Amino acid sequence: MIKVSNIFPILVWIRRYGKKDFADDFMASIIVTIMLVPQSMAYAMLAGLPPVVGMYASILPLIAYALFGSSRTLAVGPVAVISMMTATAIHNAGYSAVEDQIMAALALCIMSGLFLFVLGCLRLGFLANLLSHPVISSFITASAILIAFSQMKHILGLDIEKGNLLSTLSQLAENLANSNMTTALIGGASVIFLFWARSGIKPLLKKLGLKGHTVELIARSAPLCAVFVSLLIVSRMGLDQSHDVKTIGTLSGSLPPLALPHFDLAMWQKLLPSALIISIIGFVESVSVAQSLASLRRERIDPDQELRALGAANLTAGLSGGYPVTGGFARSVVNFDAGARSPLAGAMTAIFIGITTLLFTPLFYYLPHAVLAATIIVAVLSLVDFRSFIHAWQYRKADGIAALLTFLLVLGIGVEAGIIAGVLSSMLLHIWHTSRPHMAVVGVVPGTEHFRNVERHDVITSEKLITIRIDESLYFANSRYLENKINEIIAGQSKLEHVILMCSAVNEIDTSALESLENIGDRLQASNIKLHLSEVKGPVMDRLKKTDFMDHLNGRIYLSQYDAIKELSPDCCRAAKNGNSQEPDYII
Amino acid sequence: MIKVSNIFPILVWIRRYGKKDFADDFMASIIVTIMLVPQSMAYAMLAGLPPVVGMYASILPLIAYALFGSSRTLAVGPVAVISMMTATAIHNAGYSAVEDQIMAALALCIMSGLFLFVLGCLRLGFLANLLSHPVISSFITASAILIAFSQMKHILGLDIEKGNLLSTLSQLAENLANSNMTTALIGGASVIFLFWARSGIKPLLKKLGLKGHTVELIARSAPLCAVFVSLLIVSRMGLDQSHDVKTIGTLSGSLPPLALPHFDLAMWQKLLPSALIISIIGFVESVSVAQSLASLRRERIDPDQELRALGAANLTAGLSGGYPVTGGFARSVVNFDAGARSPLAGAMTAIFIGITTLLFTPLFYYLPHAVLAATIIVAVLSLVDFRSFIHAWQYRKADGIAALLTFLLVLGIGVEAGIIAGVLSSMLLHIWHTSRPHMAVVGVVPGTEHFRNVERHDVITSEKLITIRIDESLYFANSRYLENKINEIIAGQSKLEHVILMCSAVNEIDTSALESLENIGDRLQASNIKLHLSEVKGPVMDRLKKTDFMDHLNGRIYLSQYDAIKELSPDCCRAAKNGNSQEPDYII
Repeated sequence: MIKVSNIFPILVWIRRYGKKDFADDFMASIIVTIMLVPQSMAYAMLAGLPPVVGMYASILPLIAYALFGSSRTLAVGPVAVISMMTATAIHNAGYSAVEDQIMAALALCIMSGLFLFVLGCLRLGFLANLLSHPVISSFITASAILIAFSQMKHILGLDIEKGNLLSTLSQLAENLANSNMTTALIGGASVIFLFWARSGIKPLLKKLGLKGHTVELIARSAPLCAVFVSLLIVSRMGLDQSHDVKTIGTLSGSLPPLALPHFDLAMWQKLLPSALIISIIGFVESVSVAQSLASLRRERIDPDQELRALGAANLTAGLSGGYPVTGGFARSVVNFDAGARSPLAGAMTAIFIGITTLLFTPLFYYLPHAVLAATIIVAVLSLVDFRSFIHAWQYRKADGIAALLTFLLVLGIGVEAGIIAGVLSSMLLHIWHTSRPHMAVVGVVPGTEHFRNVERHDVITSEKLITIRIDESLYFANSRYLENKINEIIAGQSKLEHVILMCSAVNEIDTSALESLENIGDRLQASNIKLHLSEVKGPVMDRLKKTDFMDHLNGRIYLSQYDAIKELSPDCCRAAKNGNSQEPDYII
Repeated sequence: MIKVSNIFPILVWIRRYGKKDFADDFMASIIVTIMLVPQSMAYAMLAGLPPVVGMYASILPLIAYALFGSSRTLAVGPVAVISMMTATAIHNAGYSAVEDQIMAALALCIMSGLFLFVLGCLRLGFLANLLSHPVISSFITASAILIAFSQMKHILGLDIEKGNLLSTLSQLAENLANSNMTTALIGGASVIFLFWARSGIKPLLKKLGLKGHTVELIARSAPLCAVFVSLLIVSRMGLDQSHDVKTIGTLSGSLPPLALPHFDLAMWQKLLPSALIISIIGFVESVSVAQSLASLRRERIDPDQELRALGAANLTAGLSGGYPVTGGFARSVVNFDAGARSPLAGAMTAIFIGITTLLFTPLFYYLPHAVLAATIIVAVLSLVDFRSFIHAWQYRKADGIAALLTFLLVLGIGVEAGIIAGVLSSMLLHIWHTSRPHMAVVGVVPGTEHFRNVERHDVITSEKLITIRIDESLYFANSRYLENKINEIIAGQSKLEHVILMCSAVNEIDTSALESLENIGDRLQASNIKLHLSEVKGPVMDRLKKTDFMDHLNGRIYLSQYDAIKELSPDCCRAAKNGNSQEPDYII
């Protein structure tokens, strides 16, 4: 049973909500709004949509998340990677007219919202686990690089086609000479200012004696500051006319339209696969952020509830003229640092953005694309992270390979191909890894009841008996290998009477492995060798009891490996008791 | 390094090859030839190709396998499932002219041969392990049902379109009234005779006092007998003219053409995915048969060498007018039962089939399609096996679901969709299964050094310390779950000072899980709780040592869980020593 308070976490926190909480939330919401206004427009541009769509996506979806979300501090809205994936999906589906692109974005929202909501109701949050950390991290790094270079055209004032990294770079190189110098100057200056603001502004303000929220407020205003300075310059000097600097132009200054988007079956079918991928990526990004922030304050989030909340946010985005949204990393951290106490901070942010959209959009007429592109570039480059790729590669080649594959395919082909390759390769490499499990022939450590690898330790064994410790769950991917390996181990052992499989690390035996065990038993029986199992775990044993496996087994199942030896090879046991106790250096 | 004798296993067995071996191989090859002649033509018909293509596929590929194969008794050639997959691939690619179909079959051979050979050289035989036993078995059962019904049109003398089971059944029902009665009579009689011959003929012959090879020879001749009786009847009574009974007609009575097939890039591209699936299915079928036969005689087969051998066989088929081949179940068992000693039996079979093709093809002019269809139906229905599906379902739902999905998709959509769904669902279900690992809080069993689940046993614990035993490898699919679960377990434990993760069943820690462990450690540290590991396995430890994980860990890594308790909670240890020794009922 799902409790009502699980579905509406607001019912829990609202009871203890006090004045102090409200003051904190209010302050945080102002800081996030200042950050979100330019970002919303910039990310909408990245998604290939009119800037106002980004604003719409930052109003009602935030309120939907505030109602359903289980995280206290997650800030939902348009984010860079999802924006680019939206652009790619719409581009690949072949829509070039603005109206079609807006319709396609709404279709993506609705499908993505429904999908997330259904996953949440089915408690399928585990699907997000198919993405390993190295794959996510190299996906985000590659996407960030792709995004940064894709924005160079706005900085340089060039018109180039959407494509993979190589085509973007070659087009940039070809057209470099045609750059609009004024635009490039504005763009370049913005990039430099924003980069400096990221790290240089806070120490400066503190040196000036400012403190706390004031510092935070001013530091976060840097993008907004760039926006206002640039639009003052452009409007006063008429650069949009005289020097052809591209600006946003007229924005509709109305509240989001509330309407069911037009349903076009062909379009929805075309966009469905992209909607699914966008949902999963969005969910993974969001839940990772929510989880790390929650753990900092010892709060808990519920992944299935997060699915439903993001589903509701996207459905709302689809019904109010937005485009796919999710929890963003940077803005959630800002919200958290600014002291947000509850999802009310998000709801208040939504109200402030609503007011901005209604009243202040005419202000942005002269805002140059180049400045928005600069905010995107500076934002995404902070996501670039090669260190975790290097760590993965050093720690475990398989993870490094999956990450590398993702990275190369995102840059070479596209975000969707990259992420699919990442998921499939992680799964295949995991299965490959477990398909050749470590197995060790073990013997008794003298003077103890412990068993260790005969190749690494001085242990007591018997010619009549071989114990094989299997260091992996037995399932279809390694059942055949098990058969081969045991054949190999016992080949040429003429005095052998007993084979014991020590199952202390076998967490599962699936149907394929069960058949293989039966085959192994039959073959051993044909040579008058008995097959025994030892240290079989409870859950595995429960399952085995449901079958006739134990009736066919010509040996026994022993509780502990020592019991097995005691009964099957008393000599061995005696020798072990008389031997010296030499604890091995390390468990193998 | 691969030894020459590994590449040509013939070099090993030929040294000890004696007269007795030759006599055995000779006899086995005659029995297999008698079985293979009608079967080759029948399976070629099933593949939608001229009957002589089936004969060609049973000559040179057998010799290629004899040179490279590591199995002594595997009989290679056209088999039912691969024949149907070939028909499906060619049909889906849209080739309807006979010449195009033959060309497509050759292209499939060459691509499949190259793919298998390359896999073998790269030692990637493990790929076949992605198919779990229940998936293979339900795939074969569903394919057999599909094949059996697809042959009904030949039995009834009807012309119907290729399709899934439903469309085949509905077409059969619609056209039933148009059946050719004479054809149906011949077909029906053949089916009944062949079914009877499978089980009834051997006891009868033994009752008549016949023995050994003679019984085997006569029993295996049943299909050939049906062939000759039917063609005598048809030719004498002129049924092909008077009653429109469809027969094979003129076969080219020449040896296989030796030529590189025409290379048509568009065709090869279209057929590539099918060629890959056919290769994998063929390899899995073949290696399963080879393995079970080898183990009966305590011989070994080498999966990678089998890949190369099947690759060579298919390449040869592609260069000599055949179509995709693999090791067949029924014929290998016959070969084995008939006493085949070495791959020479296969080579001799090839020679006999070559002679038959050269000299006796005119004989088959009057052979009715219905009789060939009858041999197919009787052969494939022996592959139908619902018991292993029921077993899988009872033993483990996840295996049952994967098998059911395969079964339904093969019948409802087609063989390729079915097998892909089978592989993906097995992988996903395995990952899902391991994504919520069993974890138990454990305590010391009084009077012992053993640790057991606190919920199932009366064990000694301490308020200051929690030990969590993790019963699964830690990797990306369960690392997030691990973080959540540990948060849950420690929530509200105010006196807690130490958390120990007991890793005796952790066979691997991948990069994602390592990051999660670091996160867990950081969070515990923030609450002044120390994180320790115990019983970490050698290979896992080796890998951890390469990272800075242990520098960051605020606790220690203990060799054994008992050592950890001894140091961290001496009270607990003392209590355990003074307690009574109560061995638990079962390890949990």
